[in-house]
Amino acid sequence: MAKEKVFEESIKLHRTYRGKIEVSPKVPVTNVSDFAIWYTPGVAGPVRVIKDDPEQAFELTSRWNTVAVVSDGTRVLGLGNVGPEAALPVMEGKALLFKYLGGVDAVPLVVRAGSAEELIGVVKALEPSFGGINLEDIESPKCFYVLERLRRELSIPVWHDDQQGTALVVLSALISAFKVVGKNLRKAKVVLVGLGAANYSVLRYLDVYGADLGNVIVVERPGVGILHREHPRLSEFKVIAPHWYDASLRTNRECVSGGLPEALKGADAVIAASKPGPGVIKKEWIKLMADDPIVFALANPVPEILPQEAREAGARVVATGRSDYPNQVNNSLGFPAVFRGALTVKSRKMSDGMCIAAAEALVKYVEERGLSENYIIPRMNEEEAYVAEAVAVAEEAMREGVARASISKGELEDIIRGLIGRPKKLMRAALRENLIKIGGGS
Amino acid sequence: MAKEKVFEESIKLHRTYRGKIEVSPKVPVTNVSDFAIWYTPGVAGPVRVIKDDPEQAFELTSRWNTVAVVSDGTRVLGLGNVGPEAALPVMEGKALLFKYLGGVDAVPLVVRAGSAEELIGVVKALEPSFGGINLEDIESPKCFYVLERLRRELSIPVWHDDQQGTALVVLSALISAFKVVGKNLRKAKVVLVGLGAANYSVLRYLDVYGADLGNVIVVERPGVGILHREHPRLSEFKVIAPHWYDASLRTNRECVSGGLPEALKGADAVIAASKPGPGVIKKEWIKLMADDPIVFALANPVPEILPQEAREAGARVVATGRSDYPNQVNNSLGFPAVFRGALTVKSRKMSDGMCIAAAEALVKYVEERGLSENYIIPRMNEEEAYVAEAVAVAEEAMREGVARASISKGELEDIIRGLIGRPKKLMRAALRENLIKIGGGS
Repeated sequence: MAKEKVFEESIKLHRTYRGKIEVSPKVPVTNVSDFAIWYTPGVAGPVRVIKDDPEQAFELTSRWNTVAVVSDGTRVLGLGNVGPEAALPVMEGKALLFKYLGGVDAVPLVVRAGSAEELIGVVKALEPSFGGINLEDIESPKCFYVLERLRRELSIPVWHDDQQGTALVVLSALISAFKVVGKNLRKAKVVLVGLGAANYSVLRYLDVYGADLGNVIVVERPGVGILHREHPRLSEFKVIAPHWYDASLRTNRECVSGGLPEALKGADAVIAASKPGPGVIKKEWIKLMADDPIVFALANPVPEILPQEAREAGARVVATGRSDYPNQVNNSLGFPAVFRGALTVKSRKMSDGMCIAAAEALVKYVEERGLSENYIIPRMNEEEAYVAEAVAVAEEAMREGVARASISKGELEDIIRGLIGRPKKLMRAALRENLIKIGGGS
Repeated sequence: MAKEKVFEESIKLHRTYRGKIEVSPKVPVTNVSDFAIWYTPGVAGPVRVIKDDPEQAFELTSRWNTVAVVSDGTRVLGLGNVGPEAALPVMEGKALLFKYLGGVDAVPLVVRAGSAEELIGVVKALEPSFGGINLEDIESPKCFYVLERLRRELSIPVWHDDQQGTALVVLSALISAFKVVGKNLRKAKVVLVGLGAANYSVLRYLDVYGADLGNVIVVERPGVGILHREHPRLSEFKVIAPHWYDASLRTNRECVSGGLPEALKGADAVIAASKPGPGVIKKEWIKLMADDPIVFALANPVPEILPQEAREAGARVVATGRSDYPNQVNNSLGFPAVFRGALTVKSRKMSDGMCIAAAEALVKYVEERGLSENYIIPRMNEEEAYVAEAVAVAEEAMREGVARASISKGELEDIIRGLIGRPKKLMRAALRENLIKIGGGS
């Protein structure tokens, strides 16, 4: 569908259904007398149990499975600072994906917050309501500080999908791609184009994964170019973009300077998450790369270089953010399963180790099914990929001692497979019973 | 069921289901490609529409039908300050009632807030996510200030169920009771026992309804007794309980002093919302009241005086908070329908006029079905009572000019009847399809 046509169709359907999610009972109610159990007077029982041991809220309420999808609306899709009201359809969409793909109950919360401090305050105050926090579409560099503070100060998993989510899926695809070309990612020369929320997290995950950041080169917008510790604007970076400053010190051991062509010279892989193409990365620059180059062009809606052009220039593995090309690097492969795993064991944290475990589980999944140039990452409808990923995350949480629960691997698989499969069963039943109608009101 | 047994049974069932509500899709998803409409890239369409006109969020998202159930856990049921975690089962129960009885999507939010100002700040920040706010189980006098501030500062209906909710249902039952005994409520001598959130709001609603507050007498705890403008502790009240101060100035024209027996002498009605009985109100005191006395003894779980005792002492109409006696004064008759009405017309406010309209609609409903000593208020399973009440609220909102929508009465009735009926249909289907299982997991 052409772009404007998708927008129109989406507006029309959003207007018809007036919301993508609803709140449903999950306990039986056959008579108003049942409320004596679910509400007063019976509910005083669970209240007293939790009063004596607040952790029991994970056993006696929906908290264990409920995540807040929080945005201040300052950087929504490619549309910039649209405000909290306009961010709501996106957060509802995210909640829909959370449930349909991960069996996670997600509550969209758009927040009118004037500052990072205010946003942090609101989320901290709401912690007792949730089993996890998914931050979304918050402008950078604010998002780095908000995530860091909340990760440190809350006792539930906190995640900024534009950071960890994207980085996890990118890292997974990258590990697979290096397996395809038979090179060692940990020693490779990797170029990052654009250092926003996504690529700054990719950089952090490359570090955690054990890659040599001295071999990584980061290229930012014109006027900035390649980052390095002797960059003439280094002290300015400290103020205007601390993440540029940080990357300048930690990457590019050889202090390569210049722009994109200089950076790509001899590179094994390029990961672009900058601005919509085509033509942001030119064909002739791909030719400067090492043998069997890996090209991730992740801008939406149009990649920095089109896959066919990249291939013509010699790229061996190409990935984009688009569903109409092979190797879609898609956040939906991350957050539903990662939270599924973390929530199932009532994790206190979302550690980097859990994210790396998720990335590696996806690699293992594609390896078992025939890793190739055009299959470095599962497709969105491969349900078992989510199960494998969630199990890996849950196991890592238990291994690291951040899980509140201890569950054996076999049991974990059954529970997670059940929770991931259930929403699809419910949807089929709802469609069959005409409770949700295709093309018109529900 | 004996009290402790209900608690045990409730704990057991809460543990089995681990939550009473879940988040469900209400749009069809038959394939992951549908997410191109509900999420990226399509969702950018609705985002742009709302960016240009934030009110369109009520048309393109669930906002129009979504209410936050907010508590800081400082006064939960009769259990006091149990903290936000322990308040969660109650707020989830409320959300269940909101949906089952009113077709309203309610999100439980328990908030860790150190002060009224913090709580107000959190709710204000979340306004763009919701079509209405239901405050719950917040200690007094903090709750008065929080409600007043939020009612003034938000452009969506704000409601504290322990104030307006209780007062609405009490007022409705009281109007009916006065019809039964053939007296004029506006000129009556009414005694309020206990001036907490509920009765302070009853006082306010009596005023709005046109009752003569000079004839109302308020009795507070021992050491305080009857309030009046010459009370020796009046200046102290100003500091420790401003609502006592306010009531001292506005009620009790004749400056009656003393305790409960002095207050009840010659009274037409007593509304007790104080502390669990029996024996808080003695039989012999009822005998001091005027002919055909009306006795509302609303404490839970045991009324201030048992209905049989009140009747033996001559009470003509008796109401309690209990479902096992006639005339249950039950908040569930208020909030689901009041919000149903307000949300359906996208009201900006929850005015006192809308609450009075709701109370009068319930009176009219019982009048049409045979008002009597034992039927002054609908029972909780009388679905049409909710429809009539919601329609009255919606119409009043339109009349007062606080509604964003304009809908004809006939259409309003159809829409509201549909929205109130739908959750029961969904529940029956879920039970039939075994998607919700009685007595075990869902």
